[in-house]
Amino acid sequence: MAELHLLSPKGFRAGGVYAGIKQKKTPDVGLLVADAPVSAAGVFTTNKVVAAPVVVGRKHIAGGSLRGVVLNSGNANACTGKQGEKDAIAMCKLAASLVGCDPTEMLPSSTGIIGHMLPMANVNAGIKRVAGELGDSQEHALNFATAIMTTDARRKAASATVKIGRQTVTLAGVCKGAGMIGPRMVGPAVASKRMAGMHATMLAYLTTDAKIAPRVLQGMLGSVSDESFNAVTVDDHTSTNDTAVLLASGASGAAITSSADRKKFTAALREVCQSLAYQIAADGEGATKVVIIRISKAKDDFTARTIARAIANSPLVKCAMHGNDPNWGRIVSAAGMCGVAFDPSRATLKLQGTTVFRNGTPVSFDPEKVSKDLAASEVTVDLTCGGGTAETTLWTCDLSKEYVTINADYHT
Amino acid sequence: MAELHLLSPKGFRAGGVYAGIKQKKTPDVGLLVADAPVSAAGVFTTNKVVAAPVVVGRKHIAGGSLRGVVLNSGNANACTGKQGEKDAIAMCKLAASLVGCDPTEMLPSSTGIIGHMLPMANVNAGIKRVAGELGDSQEHALNFATAIMTTDARRKAASATVKIGRQTVTLAGVCKGAGMIGPRMVGPAVASKRMAGMHATMLAYLTTDAKIAPRVLQGMLGSVSDESFNAVTVDDHTSTNDTAVLLASGASGAAITSSADRKKFTAALREVCQSLAYQIAADGEGATKVVIIRISKAKDDFTARTIARAIANSPLVKCAMHGNDPNWGRIVSAAGMCGVAFDPSRATLKLQGTTVFRNGTPVSFDPEKVSKDLAASEVTVDLTCGGGTAETTLWTCDLSKEYVTINADYHT
Repeated sequence: MAELHLLSPKGFRAGGVYAGIKQKKTPDVGLLVADAPVSAAGVFTTNKVVAAPVVVGRKHIAGGSLRGVVLNSGNANACTGKQGEKDAIAMCKLAASLVGCDPTEMLPSSTGIIGHMLPMANVNAGIKRVAGELGDSQEHALNFATAIMTTDARRKAASATVKIGRQTVTLAGVCKGAGMIGPRMVGPAVASKRMAGMHATMLAYLTTDAKIAPRVLQGMLGSVSDESFNAVTVDDHTSTNDTAVLLASGASGAAITSSADRKKFTAALREVCQSLAYQIAADGEGATKVVIIRISKAKDDFTARTIARAIANSPLVKCAMHGNDPNWGRIVSAAGMCGVAFDPSRATLKLQGTTVFRNGTPVSFDPEKVSKDLAASEVTVDLTCGGGTAETTLWTCDLSKEYVTINADYHT
Repeated sequence: MAELHLLSPKGFRAGGVYAGIKQKKTPDVGLLVADAPVSAAGVFTTNKVVAAPVVVGRKHIAGGSLRGVVLNSGNANACTGKQGEKDAIAMCKLAASLVGCDPTEMLPSSTGIIGHMLPMANVNAGIKRVAGELGDSQEHALNFATAIMTTDARRKAASATVKIGRQTVTLAGVCKGAGMIGPRMVGPAVASKRMAGMHATMLAYLTTDAKIAPRVLQGMLGSVSDESFNAVTVDDHTSTNDTAVLLASGASGAAITSSADRKKFTAALREVCQSLAYQIAADGEGATKVVIIRISKAKDDFTARTIARAIANSPLVKCAMHGNDPNWGRIVSAAGMCGVAFDPSRATLKLQGTTVFRNGTPVSFDPEKVSKDLAASEVTVDLTCGGGTAETTLWTCDLSKEYVTINADYHT
């Protein structure tokens, strides 16, 4: 079987071209188009400083139907006032005129530096070129995936298939994100939500050829995002542009209607989104390893996520992980400092499988051995709180000198 | 006039000796003793993982009277269970027997690595030695100040005098802290308090020869701490051990009773504590500069502090400050991501005096010039929110590669 990619689900074409917005000469304008209007769901940043494309995109997706996505990298079109919104709308208008749909059927996205006006001559020329080169090959998918990249070192993609009756439904996705990562996204209609911690730019675009009603699709993406994109943090800095969009063409002919099929499809969607989230953590700026934070037996979901986030975002914990240092006091104290229920006398902490702390007191262990265990590309921190049944998993990475180099030198 | 120090206020003696707890051969056991029981106030960590000396110290200070403080560095006596509490009490008992007071009149403190039992043979030998060497000279003050240091590169001290009627009252203080800094301290009787963000180990000991009732003293220290120690962050990691204690001997003969005198004394106390807080930021692990975050016209105090803390703790902002990069999008987006009221269309941001963002849109500026301005040992980020009258100031530092070196290699 050929490798699956973003355009494997039937009914989509895409492309990416270089339009001179990024310094690096790789695609920076992308277009993803469905053959006809399709069911669409989206989740967006909860930052109060909202980039223009998110302001516009939330409105365009509100009806649950889209024809496609038009985007650029190299410039976030954020903190750009009314002109920024006009530019985001202009991107939709141009793409729509070329695709043959209404401008409100296009969702715009941008990622890159904040506070600079979009170079519209470049953007427009790029949109015109890419609209003439759309296709559904793996190369088209790769060009689109590249057009969303900024400081990413690697392209990120995932896919899955599900049997619905006798038919096979395909899901696929691409995403970008390495810095300003700690998304907290919610649907376009959600005014506020109790969020643990804070947030980051990540963009994700997902396609499927299943037939799913928009309201059902939005519910699936919302709940799956909380267990994937909203559960990854690099620097806990929520971006102004965070966006994840899921398009369902229905072109497979398989409709997701029964509760059993919804469950099956949601599981496949979760698998794809969690793979993408993991890839973001692995490609975190300067990261040398993925750190998986597992919290169990917490009082409730909010408590579990708040504790996971406090541990993941502590620079002291991140540096200890970088140095393969089993300095568990930093982890336990991070759990205690975030204002939610945590009783160390009931807690147990394991580092890469070795118990180091139990019921408020240290457990003697071989620090040399655990340090060797921590020198892996994937490390697990497992904290059992006691006093509840909630559990959560969060993906993060270590903090290296390379992170400082990338972020002290990435000049405006 | 001779330089003022911790023992300039009348009625105190102190000392510090090396007892073999720290690797570096500098004092690691300290004792501060008043000639008689004195008014005492304290604020302590709000971490739910509370070190044994804090558990014991909160009880001993609850009555508002103490004879002194006994402490060690090199070991935090945190996450050490019941044995840890016994050890903290044993420190008080031994010191009290040597000073001639009740064990509950001594407040214990510890700072250093978490999760190791105190080496009590060393601690006890140190307490015995230091009790025999107490004095009120500058050298005694320096030895005590050194006995609280861990990763600090510099000793931190401050002092002030106030005229109360015809008499001069002296205030002085010493503190430690470079990493695990982001204190959120409250009085021993405060069960919970709405705290912006999270927290870090800092220890501070303050002396004065004013005569002040314990309840008044506690109120002063509580409010001044919020504007000083609780307004400094290096890594936003609240320690299990954060403690600030203020002892008032009354030996000057000047009583602080009138509202005017309370105001005068509080202003002097604020000056001393803010100087100490500033010194902590300046000595932050790996820091090359102090970054002062000023928030004004915010909706309320909580909003102002939450925004200040989100900006100060963003690794993206800290790295930009390290690289002298006027990347103001990171600052504005940090203000928007912390869940409190913030409307970018009413906000104005200045970097080292230059306006870079106003009412939701960029202001054109010379990035070369601002970058040069940011290459200073003290940098100011000034964000006017609009829509309120609350203001706050927070001290932090930049994030350098040296920070990673210190914290990835400080092995357990």
